[in-house]
Amino acid sequence: MNFASDNIVGASAPVLQAIVQANAGAMAAYGNDEISRRVRARFSEIFEREVSVFFATTGTAANALALSSAVPPYGLCVCHREAHIIDDECGAPEFFMHGAKLAGLPGVGAKLRAEDVAAYVKSLPKAVKQMPPKALSISQVSEGGLVYSLDELAALGQVCREHGLSFHMDGARFANALVALGCTPAEMTWKQGVDILSFGATKNGGLMAEAIVVFKKDLAEALDYRSKRAGQIISKGRLIAAQFEGYFAEDHWLANARHANRMAKLLSDGLLQVPGVRLAWPTEANEVFPIIPQALDQALKAAGILYSPWTELSLPEAERVGENEALIRLVASWATKEEDVRKLLEIASSGVSRQAAE
Amino acid sequence: MNFASDNIVGASAPVLQAIVQANAGAMAAYGNDEISRRVRARFSEIFEREVSVFFATTGTAANALALSSAVPPYGLCVCHREAHIIDDECGAPEFFMHGAKLAGLPGVGAKLRAEDVAAYVKSLPKAVKQMPPKALSISQVSEGGLVYSLDELAALGQVCREHGLSFHMDGARFANALVALGCTPAEMTWKQGVDILSFGATKNGGLMAEAIVVFKKDLAEALDYRSKRAGQIISKGRLIAAQFEGYFAEDHWLANARHANRMAKLLSDGLLQVPGVRLAWPTEANEVFPIIPQALDQALKAAGILYSPWTELSLPEAERVGENEALIRLVASWATKEEDVRKLLEIASSGVSRQAAE
Amino acid sequence: MNFASDNIVGASAPVLQAIVQANAGAMAAYGNDEISRRVRARFSEIFEREVSVFFATTGTAANALALSSAVPPYGLCVCHREAHIIDDECGAPEFFMHGAKLAGLPGVGAKLRAEDVAAYVKSLPKAVKQMPPKALSISQVSEGGLVYSLDELAALGQVCREHGLSFHMDGARFANALVALGCTPAEMTWKQGVDILSFGATKNGGLMAEAIVVFKKDLAEALDYRSKRAGQIISKGRLIAAQFEGYFAEDHWLANARHANRMAKLLSDGLLQVPGVRLAWPTEANEVFPIIPQALDQALKAAGILYSPWTELSLPEAERVGENEALIRLVASWATKEEDVRKLLEIASSGVSRQAAE
Amino acid sequence: MNFASDNIVGASAPVLQAIVQANAGAMAAYGNDEISRRVRARFSEIFEREVSVFFATTGTAANALALSSAVPPYGLCVCHREAHIIDDECGAPEFFMHGAKLAGLPGVGAKLRAEDVAAYVKSLPKAVKQMPPKALSISQVSEGGLVYSLDELAALGQVCREHGLSFHMDGARFANALVALGCTPAEMTWKQGVDILSFGATKNGGLMAEAIVVFKKDLAEALDYRSKRAGQIISKGRLIAAQFEGYFAEDHWLANARHANRMAKLLSDGLLQVPGVRLAWPTEANEVFPIIPQALDQALKAAGILYSPWTELSLPEAERVGENEALIRLVASWATKEEDVRKLLEIASSGVSRQAAE
Repeated sequence: MNFASDNIVGASAPVLQAIVQANAGAMAAYGNDEISRRVRARFSEIFEREVSVFFATTGTAANALALSSAVPPYGLCVCHREAHIIDDECGAPEFFMHGAKLAGLPGVGAKLRAEDVAAYVKSLPKAVKQMPPKALSISQVSEGGLVYSLDELAALGQVCREHGLSFHMDGARFANALVALGCTPAEMTWKQGVDILSFGATKNGGLMAEAIVVFKKDLAEALDYRSKRAGQIISKGRLIAAQFEGYFAEDHWLANARHANRMAKLLSDGLLQVPGVRLAWPTEANEVFPIIPQALDQALKAAGILYSPWTELSLPEAERVGENEALIRLVASWATKEEDVRKLLEIASSGVSRQAAE
Repeated sequence: MNFASDNIVGASAPVLQAIVQANAGAMAAYGNDEISRRVRARFSEIFEREVSVFFATTGTAANALALSSAVPPYGLCVCHREAHIIDDECGAPEFFMHGAKLAGLPGVGAKLRAEDVAAYVKSLPKAVKQMPPKALSISQVSEGGLVYSLDELAALGQVCREHGLSFHMDGARFANALVALGCTPAEMTWKQGVDILSFGATKNGGLMAEAIVVFKKDLAEALDYRSKRAGQIISKGRLIAAQFEGYFAEDHWLANARHANRMAKLLSDGLLQVPGVRLAWPTEANEVFPIIPQALDQALKAAGILYSPWTELSLPEAERVGENEALIRLVASWATKEEDVRKLLEIASSGVSRQAAE
Repeated sequence: MNFASDNIVGASAPVLQAIVQANAGAMAAYGNDEISRRVRARFSEIFEREVSVFFATTGTAANALALSSAVPPYGLCVCHREAHIIDDECGAPEFFMHGAKLAGLPGVGAKLRAEDVAAYVKSLPKAVKQMPPKALSISQVSEGGLVYSLDELAALGQVCREHGLSFHMDGARFANALVALGCTPAEMTWKQGVDILSFGATKNGGLMAEAIVVFKKDLAEALDYRSKRAGQIISKGRLIAAQFEGYFAEDHWLANARHANRMAKLLSDGLLQVPGVRLAWPTEANEVFPIIPQALDQALKAAGILYSPWTELSLPEAERVGENEALIRLVASWATKEEDVRKLLEIASSGVSRQAAE
Repeated sequence: MNFASDNIVGASAPVLQAIVQANAGAMAAYGNDEISRRVRARFSEIFEREVSVFFATTGTAANALALSSAVPPYGLCVCHREAHIIDDECGAPEFFMHGAKLAGLPGVGAKLRAEDVAAYVKSLPKAVKQMPPKALSISQVSEGGLVYSLDELAALGQVCREHGLSFHMDGARFANALVALGCTPAEMTWKQGVDILSFGATKNGGLMAEAIVVFKKDLAEALDYRSKRAGQIISKGRLIAAQFEGYFAEDHWLANARHANRMAKLLSDGLLQVPGVRLAWPTEANEVFPIIPQALDQALKAAGILYSPWTELSLPEAERVGENEALIRLVASWATKEEDVRKLLEIASSGVSRQAAE
């Protein structure tokens, strides 16, 4: 039973099928093929407006490329201090942005509050020694598994407009947030002021399918050159494009995300029944962040269940993890089986019971 | 009939099959899966020594990453003035090397001569204003379709050792060169002094399968960090690794390359029978560079045959392209059908006859 | 009366005189002149061992160049979160290091503790997503005006050795720290494990005189190339070299620093006599960081005295600045007049008296 | 007798005097002082329009900063293949431009012809693999000592406008070109389409005085940040500003340049009287490029005269340097003494006579 992440399984069947189908025949290279063209147009439909789309091979590259378009080398990009772009990409944003800096702010569950962003930006000295803020980057779903509401997004969008920041959304789990909010892709992005989006499909059924979706036209201007020089324009572009075709067909992506979120909810609700378990913050998409007794932590591990320990950095002061507790992350995906969730919960219940009996 | 390049078709059957098979089940992400481990070991077998292997999603990224490991930001990398890294990668090497410079030297058929490299390096002023030469990069097969012999490679390797240059080989068409020489991978690389290799499989049966193979240990030291920050470590690493598994199995890769080279030879020999056709330089791998009458050029295009015009920059002075001639490139691949080659030759013959008749 | 910084006056007389004298006659350009050579040798004498010396035109450039030599583009440099390199150089280190990251740790008075550095480095995940720590940079004098003792430096040096970090010292106020400790330049640097030093003279009598002094040989290897490509090798190198000659002659630099420190002590002691005034942390070199009543702040400003407000970020929790207080920084220099200090103290005393009377 | 370059002497008297005078008193740091302000205004007067001015410590930094403002990291900058920015700055432009590329074109005497620039730009493939051309950089005076006429500048400006290139002028010897043409600074720059200028004073009487003068407003937008992060904003800004004040006062700069050009003319005319001596190309400013008999070369060296050998790369095919000849460069400056020129000419005449006699 593997709850370590949502990237440990391959592609879902429709996506794999699309790759196989697209493999046949001669097509123009470097993304000039008909499938790539079709998919780009599909993105515009999905977002209810003309958008520019650039494919990428990793979420890291998508984020870093998007940021390089929004932030000049001498600029600052505001984000959460636990953002994926700060902690998990070995400096890719700094590389692609040519030395621009990420400024990490605090916030419960790795979510930023609009007022904190505004206060930070206002606090910066107006001096040449100070790198000027040029972009805001948030993760929707956040690194803590939380989902920004439309109002929260709108407030952040408003701060961006007021201070001349480009607004970037890291959508590695875009679909999970979307179905959590029950809104449209347009509502969750440009309608709230998002300018550029890393649209991830790999974690939700893709094999390797990422895209940068650009709403603010001038941010798209040089992205093809930037992408090429970053080695991101793959030779046989159909490989990525085909996956998106399979992903979008018959709302397959939404179904996948709904399943993942439902599994997480099941897990979350079940764990809360276990004595001594509480949540670091609510379960809003496909990730659960419970604080559990260390004995339970050991029991789960002993049962061979895979998951990650988590940092308490974004936990409110009042909720600190106790000495005999552990904060962990469990991730559900489109491929998570309900029976595995039930098994985990059973082990959790009995693990604690056993412990109580001892 | 498409002779435009060897990247216009999808994956060959065994490679596609390998992707499909590898798709099932949970595996560690980011290249820590068992298939990736297996394939890395396989590379060491193929090269008859321990090598470090880093997967990449494009040849551009493989080249640029390899060079970034060999050349510091203030250094110079010597290459042919028509090298792919200079002309076709939108500055990826300069980006990954943080501003290091490519110095392009002349040479017939885009091949470098050891004596020219040595003379150039010696000619550089020993002064702080001069970026110091740190690497040599060659393409095997060259951009002009020529194959360096083992002696030529050894001579270049010798120049590198004498002048403290790291020796990089762009092996986008590694297999085509290998079967052309009829030697082993070890003989064509580290045994002649090659330190780091971009090993391409995409053009020869892969869908997206590139690897950096490192022979000089210290060049491998930081490549995992460099690769991660370049967004090149894909989440589901099995996608690339599996392709190599299919590629190497039962010498599939060598069979593919042999077919492509044979098709090119057929094409080349046939074209030389056509009046007014000559070769810019010999056909040594899977590409043909004929100089043809413009009338023939028009006839081929009229027949819907796809191929590229080529530059005469690397043509010897005495062989300049005449006013009524065109220098073109025709590429054969593992998927090229013999009947298509024959059809092209037929059109070529009749095209010229018709013209003669007019 | 200007206590804003120690860079608001020109050069001291011996330094200016040295510039004028060096101006005459023809000399080799780009630092190949005899004065530059002489001064380089002088540095080796002063540091009691052979050192490599590279001149720079700003402290920003000296710091950034030094760091670029110690930290690869994918690496991490640990420093204080209020370090000059983080807050005051518009991203110069990130630019020169090609995107490497500065990791800022807390510490009272902008001083780092060895145990905090060790704990931080140990806490970093051993994973490719994590930029590996490659250097430690401290400021001696710290941004808060504190001086690391030899024992503290030794402890930091020990941490660096244990974790494979290069040890950089930003010595913008090197002389002030040196006379505060009463030790030799060697004792304050390489004898405690410092590998590379930004040696500043501009704030202590120079007009524009900075040098990078390298103790760890391999860090010097490419610094001439890095310096040239950063535009830091000035054409008429004698301009900088001559200043150092004037600076070092007859221990002029030490006399300047002693005066500045004495003026700061006078200021500090006097202010502590004023009711309601306390120190954020001790006065150890040429800067005073008092927390003063806001009324006094206004009185000083009204009297036309120039100085800077300061952040309370590095203040211990228990000492927070009260609502009616202000934390300020007063800087003394080689040019500060004792009568100005006395005048300021007089104003401070009477300012508070007046306020008490009202 | 030193004709090696125009940067081997210190500052001229009025410039040195200005430094000494500016040294006194307290002033705001980092270029916010009154002298810097005054000099910036003076530049606007001199160029007969509002310009933005950024001081720099080296011509290398001035060029690289100017280019970084005009060329994005994925762009191309067209220049002469012997340009100072290509050959003499250890990759500073590539560093400051974050990997953008310099494309070097041929041209006699290191001068570019408008039609060659236009043809080159048009020849570039319109494809994402091709870095797009974004700027043209010329040197006025050229590296070969030639001066672009106003018509030639206008033609280049026209090409820039047509192809969307920013137009940069490296004016390391701006004054020498100006007095050679006998026009105004405005006529030699923005009136012909120049957008951004490296204005050098160091070679013509300064000690270290360079400035970037920006005519196209948006190129100035971020130059203060770029300059700061490049370590180019010196702490005591008055040092550079004062030099310009002394430089401009009473047309001192023009007098210096006129003298240097006159000395070069004298040298050039005199050398042409010597049998066997010819000019590689005309002497138009303060540099002479004669092709001399090797015997004369030896005689001059034997007499202890310093100068540089030169490359024949930019010599017309018909004028190649013979086996017994040498192409050299002699540079005159504001400090060159007429008697030294006459002595050199005497030695040259007698050297050849002696040789003839042998």
